[in-house]
Amino acid sequence: MTDKVISVGLMGLGTVGRGVYRILKDNSAGIEQKVGARVEIKKILVREPAKNRGIDLREDMLTANVGDIVENPEIDLVVEVMGGINPAFEYSMMALKKGKSLVTANKDMIALHGKELFEAADENNADVLFEASVAGGIPIIRPLKECLAANRIRQVIGIINGTTNYMLTRMTKESLDFEQVLKEAQALGYAEADPSADVEGYDAARKLAILSSIAFNTRVPLNKVFVEGITGITAEDIIYANELNYVIKLLGIAKETDEGIEVRVHPALLPKHHPLASVNDVYNAIFIRGDAVGDVMFYGRGAGEMPTASAVVADVMNAARNLLRNVPGIISCTCFEEKPVKPMGSTSTKYYVRLNVADKPGVLAGIALIFGNNEVSLSSVIQRHTSGHSAEIVLVTHEVLERNFQEALKSIRKLSAVYEITSVIRTEGD
Amino acid sequence: MTDKVISVGLMGLGTVGRGVYRILKDNSAGIEQKVGARVEIKKILVREPAKNRGIDLREDMLTANVGDIVENPEIDLVVEVMGGINPAFEYSMMALKKGKSLVTANKDMIALHGKELFEAADENNADVLFEASVAGGIPIIRPLKECLAANRIRQVIGIINGTTNYMLTRMTKESLDFEQVLKEAQALGYAEADPSADVEGYDAARKLAILSSIAFNTRVPLNKVFVEGITGITAEDIIYANELNYVIKLLGIAKETDEGIEVRVHPALLPKHHPLASVNDVYNAIFIRGDAVGDVMFYGRGAGEMPTASAVVADVMNAARNLLRNVPGIISCTCFEEKPVKPMGSTSTKYYVRLNVADKPGVLAGIALIFGNNEVSLSSVIQRHTSGHSAEIVLVTHEVLERNFQEALKSIRKLSAVYEITSVIRTEGD
Repeated sequence: MTDKVISVGLMGLGTVGRGVYRILKDNSAGIEQKVGARVEIKKILVREPAKNRGIDLREDMLTANVGDIVENPEIDLVVEVMGGINPAFEYSMMALKKGKSLVTANKDMIALHGKELFEAADENNADVLFEASVAGGIPIIRPLKECLAANRIRQVIGIINGTTNYMLTRMTKESLDFEQVLKEAQALGYAEADPSADVEGYDAARKLAILSSIAFNTRVPLNKVFVEGITGITAEDIIYANELNYVIKLLGIAKETDEGIEVRVHPALLPKHHPLASVNDVYNAIFIRGDAVGDVMFYGRGAGEMPTASAVVADVMNAARNLLRNVPGIISCTCFEEKPVKPMGSTSTKYYVRLNVADKPGVLAGIALIFGNNEVSLSSVIQRHTSGHSAEIVLVTHEVLERNFQEALKSIRKLSAVYEITSVIRTEGD
Repeated sequence: MTDKVISVGLMGLGTVGRGVYRILKDNSAGIEQKVGARVEIKKILVREPAKNRGIDLREDMLTANVGDIVENPEIDLVVEVMGGINPAFEYSMMALKKGKSLVTANKDMIALHGKELFEAADENNADVLFEASVAGGIPIIRPLKECLAANRIRQVIGIINGTTNYMLTRMTKESLDFEQVLKEAQALGYAEADPSADVEGYDAARKLAILSSIAFNTRVPLNKVFVEGITGITAEDIIYANELNYVIKLLGIAKETDEGIEVRVHPALLPKHHPLASVNDVYNAIFIRGDAVGDVMFYGRGAGEMPTASAVVADVMNAARNLLRNVPGIISCTCFEEKPVKPMGSTSTKYYVRLNVADKPGVLAGIALIFGNNEVSLSSVIQRHTSGHSAEIVLVTHEVLERNFQEALKSIRKLSAVYEITSVIRTEGD
């Protein structure tokens, strides 16, 4: 239909790379119609070109030499789906410096080296597109950069890690404990042998750094994101939360306030009526509040071969169109402001606290007094006798300053009648 | 920061027009940064320029003469927010023929005259953008055209009329009847004095014609959309649905099948676990299934001054960027295929049927026999004695061909023991 061709160099042929290959092959006719040119993979960078991959590839397509892609004048556009920082970042920069547009699914690389990539792209008249780096197949980067561009974004709250959302869903539905569901998630391939990137919140933090940078038009460095994982969440907390009309989710939270922006990843009690509360299993969702649009939410699969490849190929199609019309970079980096990140101590949230205390008169009064002295007021209290001489107290505070709350906790911990502060979890979305 | 200006002619200063004016004024700095030029409204077309509108406008800005906008060489881009077909369509065509890009929120005009508008735009190197025409502030047109472009879309299911969703939510939560909530919705301004466009499903049909045209890359004429409203839904049906683990929603449903595409608007029983089932009140949501991305959903406010204006201004910003880089129409009409619309009789759904029958032996057997003779098999049956000599039967069928089901109903209606077929509602999303 057209004799125009956009030639793609694919770096990496793992799960996502195979998905990209499959979509470009299976949906080639529609893609050609929408782009106005055929989109063809010319070269694929792999470690071992001789390995049998069980997919139908032209023999001369595979190479172990990055120069065959980044130095190849026939290649217009490079897709980086190797993952990790080294050598993905080095190779991506080589491609951009040769004026090739870059599509990447690499959240680590964008979160850590976004600035260098965008600068190289601008200098060399190229695109850097990275829809797949956050929330897999869910359209979120482009909607933020374009569809919601008329808004001042007030907050972004996301369930952006499928592994932990699966685990928390299982813990909630089956009253299972963390260790049990972790083993289950590992057996199913949802969690890795070393699960720390997921369960400690680091994966979500990288995605939140990217999302908040775009939402607030300021570069949010990864090391400014407060991170707390879900390893401390127990089945008991989930049961109490349910009783208080909440669910527990691992959230990425970014808010713009007068004193700077808040960016934090932590488990939180979320009211059951919140749109994010019914996002279960491996699904992801991102809830956005803008000054004009109000509340919107984007929901879907945040990972997996084909969903992630769907986002990568959409970016390839956009980059291809931009190349055909000679407008790469028509929408470039949007971090044109410099906003400070608010220190965690200055943020305000409501807190859920569970304590194991001596079952005798005056204990609750003593705890309440310390909270009061630190300007922490309480909105609900559940006290239950447990066994022997101990009782369990569950408190929910009103919105309080983080640093006041932490001061109060320090003093409470010193009370002899307080055996243990079992859980401390923030709430969100009330 | 820049001396470039994109000049806008605004046609219409009703609810949405005022919202557009406000956003372009209040968020001008961010908009300028993102576009790379100031975006300024030069002229506003109104019926009575002398009328006091309570907003701060330069005196020479208002005009009653469309020529001041469409013939004005200073104006680059026209925003049509008058609504209706006449004279909005005529004026929009005049603007396009003068090479001005067009942004519109007008679902009626796009659903009926999309083809002429796109052809005029292509001939005159202009953009036609219409994000606000479907689901107000929710990004859906651009995500479908760009972010999900690598997919073959299998189905689109939307709650795309806020008025009826509000009404059904109230009926569900308070067990109220249709007439009661209609009065309430009218009092709140959610429903119009003549509510037929909403409650009969016509508004949703226009939006579905637009969505399905984009999703399946084929122009779906409005008159091919099957439409059935919610006027027959009663509180009893909602209670039975709840018992069967469903909610009742007015859905716009578009599916691609081997025998053509299905496009239909009707109330439907939706399983409670479906992501659309928890979309309540005036909120809209669109659920999309693609061959690569799997299931995604977009949620937010489908109407209102500021949400709709958010979508309009986003389109203005995109059109402005395209003008600055001289690439209007870089993403144009995507209806490059011609797919037949499947006749309604050939579609397959599960059905919920409620009947009032004589309370005597053999009635259910007679009904079941007729269904069986028409290849309609049943998945669940509830029978209850009501009062006197009558009983109520509620049936849910397996998936059956529409024409077989309707044949069966005809025969059942003739049974002397069947006093009334009280309700017939399709189900979706099982």
